[in-house]
Amino acid sequence: MEKGYFISFEGVDGSGKSTQIKKLKQYLEGRGYHVVLTREPGGTAIGEKIRDIILDPENSDMTDMTEAMLYAASRSQHVSRVIEPALVQGKIVICDRFVDSSIAYQGYGRKLGDCVGIINEFVIGENLPDLTVWMKIKPEITSSRMKYRQKDRIELEEIDFHQRVYDGYEKLEKAFPQRIIGIDATNSIDDTYKAIIDRVEMLLKRNE
Amino acid sequence: MEKGYFISFEGVDGSGKSTQIKKLKQYLEGRGYHVVLTREPGGTAIGEKIRDIILDPENSDMTDMTEAMLYAASRSQHVSRVIEPALVQGKIVICDRFVDSSIAYQGYGRKLGDCVGIINEFVIGENLPDLTVWMKIKPEITSSRMKYRQKDRIELEEIDFHQRVYDGYEKLEKAFPQRIIGIDATNSIDDTYKAIIDRVEMLLKRNE
Repeated sequence: MEKGYFISFEGVDGSGKSTQIKKLKQYLEGRGYHVVLTREPGGTAIGEKIRDIILDPENSDMTDMTEAMLYAASRSQHVSRVIEPALVQGKIVICDRFVDSSIAYQGYGRKLGDCVGIINEFVIGENLPDLTVWMKIKPEITSSRMKYRQKDRIELEEIDFHQRVYDGYEKLEKAFPQRIIGIDATNSIDDTYKAIIDRVEMLLKRNE
Repeated sequence: MEKGYFISFEGVDGSGKSTQIKKLKQYLEGRGYHVVLTREPGGTAIGEKIRDIILDPENSDMTDMTEAMLYAASRSQHVSRVIEPALVQGKIVICDRFVDSSIAYQGYGRKLGDCVGIINEFVIGENLPDLTVWMKIKPEITSSRMKYRQKDRIELEEIDFHQRVYDGYEKLEKAFPQRIIGIDATNSIDDTYKAIIDRVEMLLKRNE
């Protein structure tokens, strides 16, 4: 059986990721693909327990390195138990956040630097996404979009942090232009959707 | 103020670590030192939550890499919030298990290899123990000692695993003879205690 496709979605919270992920899933299922939808941190029973520790606002004393290691722990479980088995079975995996989140948030946002990439290489092995959709939207815009709901520990960070995360994603986009595409997420839902489908179709055609 | 001393205890469960740690603490306090007693995994509020995930027999599906990352996460919090601050204040830190546990259990026992050391270098930075007491006792002996109590997820592993852990400690002892001392833990409590105190006194005299 042919190996499936691995598509990750990245971007700050409030960028419209969830909406586009749902629409893409419907589209691909309509095309006859078997789609596995998953998310990080979490995606497994053990990963969800780790997610709870990471995001609980009570754990404000958490060090940046602890946070990076917990994300890596959750990802390790996720790759081995969900992503890799689904890809081996020829399915399409759509993952809400993956390794680029760690590099953008912990590497750039928390300023931990290159160690985040090194740690995550051990964790993901060969399982790098075939396509990563970065929902590109400046943090000051998402900040005003999220004004009326409760924020988790990461979302509560200052605007400077979220600006560094944005800059980190921009650097990743430039460093890996074959894999990562920045999609202007300030456009309408439909325009954004069309732009994503175009790129996904290019990916699927590669092997057809 | 002068930096304190960092002493870690290592060895398979059932080797008599806890008894010797308590006795050493009393001895050092009798000598006028301020002693901080702590343990891994755990040692902080966040670390204890991580410990619960690691040791819960319910989480039998945990991958080896996830386990290694969770230990590193717990250690990161512990080093930053407990060990380093105590050492800066000139205290003596006695830690029940530290980085050598990860190398012996995950590196050798789980066969994850060198990545465990690399990951932990990011976590501990300069905070390597001044002295590591390895309570040396073959796993077949501790296994019979622990027959009558409930075992956690790691303790439930097969004898082959525990043999690899033992071999791992032996390799560490040979690689770092200045820092790690193997103490024959099959001797009486008092003889073991005297052997430990001798080495601790050597450490304290270095700076006196």
